[in-house]
Amino acid sequence: MVDAAKGKRRSTTPARVKMVDGGAVSERPDRLATEEPMEVRVAGPGQDAAPVAVIMRTPGGDFELAAGFLFTEGLVTGREEIAQVSYCEDLPAEEQRYNVVTVRLSRPWDPTTAKRSFFATSSCGVCGKASLDEIEVRCAPLDPGPVVPAALISSLPERLREGQKVFQRTGGLHAAALFDASGSMLSLREDVGRHNAVDKLVGEALLSGDLPLSDRILQVSGRAGFEVEQKAAVAGIPIMAAVSAPSSLAVEAADRLGITLAGFVRGRRLNLYSHSERISV
Amino acid sequence: MVDAAKGKRRSTTPARVKMVDGGAVSERPDRLATEEPMEVRVAGPGQDAAPVAVIMRTPGGDFELAAGFLFTEGLVTGREEIAQVSYCEDLPAEEQRYNVVTVRLSRPWDPTTAKRSFFATSSCGVCGKASLDEIEVRCAPLDPGPVVPAALISSLPERLREGQKVFQRTGGLHAAALFDASGSMLSLREDVGRHNAVDKLVGEALLSGDLPLSDRILQVSGRAGFEVEQKAAVAGIPIMAAVSAPSSLAVEAADRLGITLAGFVRGRRLNLYSHSERISV
Repeated sequence: MVDAAKGKRRSTTPARVKMVDGGAVSERPDRLATEEPMEVRVAGPGQDAAPVAVIMRTPGGDFELAAGFLFTEGLVTGREEIAQVSYCEDLPAEEQRYNVVTVRLSRPWDPTTAKRSFFATSSCGVCGKASLDEIEVRCAPLDPGPVVPAALISSLPERLREGQKVFQRTGGLHAAALFDASGSMLSLREDVGRHNAVDKLVGEALLSGDLPLSDRILQVSGRAGFEVEQKAAVAGIPIMAAVSAPSSLAVEAADRLGITLAGFVRGRRLNLYSHSERISV
Repeated sequence: MVDAAKGKRRSTTPARVKMVDGGAVSERPDRLATEEPMEVRVAGPGQDAAPVAVIMRTPGGDFELAAGFLFTEGLVTGREEIAQVSYCEDLPAEEQRYNVVTVRLSRPWDPTTAKRSFFATSSCGVCGKASLDEIEVRCAPLDPGPVVPAALISSLPERLREGQKVFQRTGGLHAAALFDASGSMLSLREDVGRHNAVDKLVGEALLSGDLPLSDRILQVSGRAGFEVEQKAAVAGIPIMAAVSAPSSLAVEAADRLGITLAGFVRGRRLNLYSHSERISV
């Protein structure tokens, strides 16, 4: 079955850097956020595994990332469909072995599904509305969810930052964290891609049988775009907060799908873009 | 032929926002960075256009984005292959019409090329090295390029920020700009995706016959990941600077492909991760 322990690979990479400070130059060791490709393969019972996507990601939580990606992209609909998640042990080079994750399903897999799914927006028209139509059919109706004080939301960015171990060492990584309605941090994931950090959180919940995340708050570093909003929606998360600005389509998605979206969460100030009824002041 | 003027669509979207400041709530109009899907279609002479990708982007510079994307992904190798770039005028709804860009080639197009290209990394092994092998074959050998003072690099982030008109209105958009070796800004593009901003710059140069960009400096907002580094490499850009941290694979790519990569460009300080011979202190 799922062996998450094997997912622990090096999230930082040593490097040497020349630091320039005005007219002075010094050389020193440094650490970079690791970025490596990961291929996700999918197979049904007795089928050969077929590649579905190559994701540039920070190693760590690879099984959660693979499961979360398949779920938030609508290719897998629940925990019961996943029979096994594993690395590709038969590849010759070790560095490649841990960059291929195979998800075995308990049902037959049609490899053309992925292609159709990624082009779904074009078949029904290419615009923001069509994109929203397409997600909406994949999202269960959202529970009313909790009502939380604005001051609680304001406290999340600092706690996200405190928990970002890799960011502290490298200064360069996105993060996403799940909190409960009392403000306790339940899980934090870091990745070179913000959407990967969210997929890791969602994948962890999926594999633990904790979906939908209907009483949770998602806090992300940086901005909120459509992709992240869509992933939060599919996981049933009712409240999402970003340190920085949301895009127009992220706000449209939040508004239509019933998600409370906060942005520019800085100090005592924050902006509410949709469904502010879940935030008390 | 290419009609860039039609690419001017609304880069910001009006919204209403509730601002919370401690115990006070006020409602006011706001502007968001626009995010909309754009489908890129490709066709050879007499062929029907086939969809290649759907890109979430900020409208504006759509033709440059389409051309730049095809070039930096290795699907088009030069200006002479592009016969025409146009919106899909025959779609019924206007909002969709300007979200579909068709690139007509002067040679036959094999629609399976795109699929093979996006999975190139998996056929030759999935790891950072294989990804670099794959780009290297698409990159012309880099010219020695200019040598520029560190102080010039230090001046770029502020000038990038000053030129970010949409960011100033929305607080939420990536940007990339091209400078010459004397520090003059030649072009600046903004987008919800940092890689899109780079594709717009490269596409503009491609359509103007200005590739390779062998005496240019690329400055990007935020971080430098593999994807952006790869696009810069394919365009032949010798010096790239990021306001924030690079990833491990971005540094590996820069080192191997001969690109000078600067990061954490802040005030008088900056870090040099590769090929520092182009920076004088």
